[in-house]
Amino acid sequence: MALLYKADPVRGKQWQALFAEHAPDIEWRAWPDIGDPKDIQYLAAWQAPDDLDVMLPNLQVLFALSAGVDQLDLGRLPASLPVVRLLDPGITRGMCEYATFAVLSLHRDMLRYRQQQIARCWQAHLLQPAAKRRVGVMGLGAQAQQILATLQPLGFALSGWARSAHHIPGVDCYAGNAQLPAFLSQCDILLCVLPLTEQTQGILDRNLFEQLPKGAALINMGRGGHLIEEDLLEALGSGHLSGAVLDVLLQEPAPADHPFWHHPQILLTPHIAAMTQPESAFGVLLENIRRHQRGEPMLGEIDRAQGY
Amino acid sequence: MALLYKADPVRGKQWQALFAEHAPDIEWRAWPDIGDPKDIQYLAAWQAPDDLDVMLPNLQVLFALSAGVDQLDLGRLPASLPVVRLLDPGITRGMCEYATFAVLSLHRDMLRYRQQQIARCWQAHLLQPAAKRRVGVMGLGAQAQQILATLQPLGFALSGWARSAHHIPGVDCYAGNAQLPAFLSQCDILLCVLPLTEQTQGILDRNLFEQLPKGAALINMGRGGHLIEEDLLEALGSGHLSGAVLDVLLQEPAPADHPFWHHPQILLTPHIAAMTQPESAFGVLLENIRRHQRGEPMLGEIDRAQGY
Repeated sequence: MALLYKADPVRGKQWQALFAEHAPDIEWRAWPDIGDPKDIQYLAAWQAPDDLDVMLPNLQVLFALSAGVDQLDLGRLPASLPVVRLLDPGITRGMCEYATFAVLSLHRDMLRYRQQQIARCWQAHLLQPAAKRRVGVMGLGAQAQQILATLQPLGFALSGWARSAHHIPGVDCYAGNAQLPAFLSQCDILLCVLPLTEQTQGILDRNLFEQLPKGAALINMGRGGHLIEEDLLEALGSGHLSGAVLDVLLQEPAPADHPFWHHPQILLTPHIAAMTQPESAFGVLLENIRRHQRGEPMLGEIDRAQGY
Repeated sequence: MALLYKADPVRGKQWQALFAEHAPDIEWRAWPDIGDPKDIQYLAAWQAPDDLDVMLPNLQVLFALSAGVDQLDLGRLPASLPVVRLLDPGITRGMCEYATFAVLSLHRDMLRYRQQQIARCWQAHLLQPAAKRRVGVMGLGAQAQQILATLQPLGFALSGWARSAHHIPGVDCYAGNAQLPAFLSQCDILLCVLPLTEQTQGILDRNLFEQLPKGAALINMGRGGHLIEEDLLEALGSGHLSGAVLDVLLQEPAPADHPFWHHPQILLTPHIAAMTQPESAFGVLLENIRRHQRGEPMLGEIDRAQGY
């Protein structure tokens, strides 16, 4: 019985050491050194190879090494193969840190002060109390709820929107397409942590921006595919939106001529909000392998119909 | 009985409206329109005029419109004049927001990513868990304790240092000069919110930086006078320190040729960590006036011997 790892080789060494120490019964194989493909029961991967059913005839579970699985073409995977996403507490902590950084950056005018430092301009701007700053989170899954819980003690006025109804203490929750306009109309800072699905592809577009109050700002920590990039440029150019903090883009790495690099109202980071950390992720992955071995339900298994 | 206001005229209008609505018995005068100086019992000021005892013969209290009073030359004020600093909850909230922003900026490598955005470079760097990031706060007054309480849920390893001994749950507290080296040796991020006194003037110097671990970073939210600016440049240049977030400088506004403006490892903001906000500060000031009228102790009265 073997596990095949197919992702970043540097972190692969860390994973390998953790398996050797804590689960020596599970044989470690690292792509492309597969050995006998018939040995492979588990695949832990960022992206899956094509023809998985032919290549690994005894594969029982695909463990995605990420919280989202949109990088996998679920339609091309064997229909009966369980796909499990990684509920790494380190990823959630990273998302909370980045969200707090991004919200405070926008709340405290840090994009403007960044430009002022470049221009050698020492000028203070009025400060808005956090209680008057309305932060709205799109997506209300486990990560989003942790982000909201992290923002709460800072005193922001919090709201959230998701496809289905939620009840979260201290958060005004909106649900479904019918309540999306009401949600948007009260967001000074809109933070997207939606999963990327057919329904959410391109959701951050001109039509959505127009429903935000003038001067609102955007944070995208979901996927690049959520955002229509030219619509954001237009909304920033017209002054309707005041700024954006983006960790994801449609094309990553961003090409050198991408207009976001040098945009004064965009803070761009290279998809670093959260990273799978073997130290914290190992326990979650091993627990799911043991659950599978005992015939118990695994944590984070994807609903193949919904795509997340 | 009148109160004389001597500070920013724009915010003065806000103060005036609050007094007119909530304390019409206290006559409002705004510098330089003093009227009859003998009427002035209270002075609310950022900086005090010279010859205060001659100019305002019936002055009973000087209310500083700031949390620190180092901008006042206490030695030149009448010895018996009570000086009260402003314990504005809005200032504390601003300090907590800025501290959280600054700590997360350094923790999450945001100065490096700022430079990468300028250089159009898409490259992720390994992420350190917050629990392994040791944040040390110099100064353990009310503001510092609120800052520590704000950082605590983010999971950082917290310590603090002050002249006198403190006991704060979840924070390793160090006291006095004897324990300063031990405190410094374990600070990955050093955050200064000390009051500026003769003892703390220039405390952030080469000698102190050398006691920090290699790669440590600095946040100065105290006063510009705490920092020996050329020593910081040297420590950044040698690679011993990795970065700094500075909200205060010795000379404010910073002159256009100041070397901090264009330093890639320095994030510089124009003294905006916190601002006195009449909305939140008014209640505190009025409460102190009423306490003085009733002969009760005021909140935030300065110990003239200690200077804070």
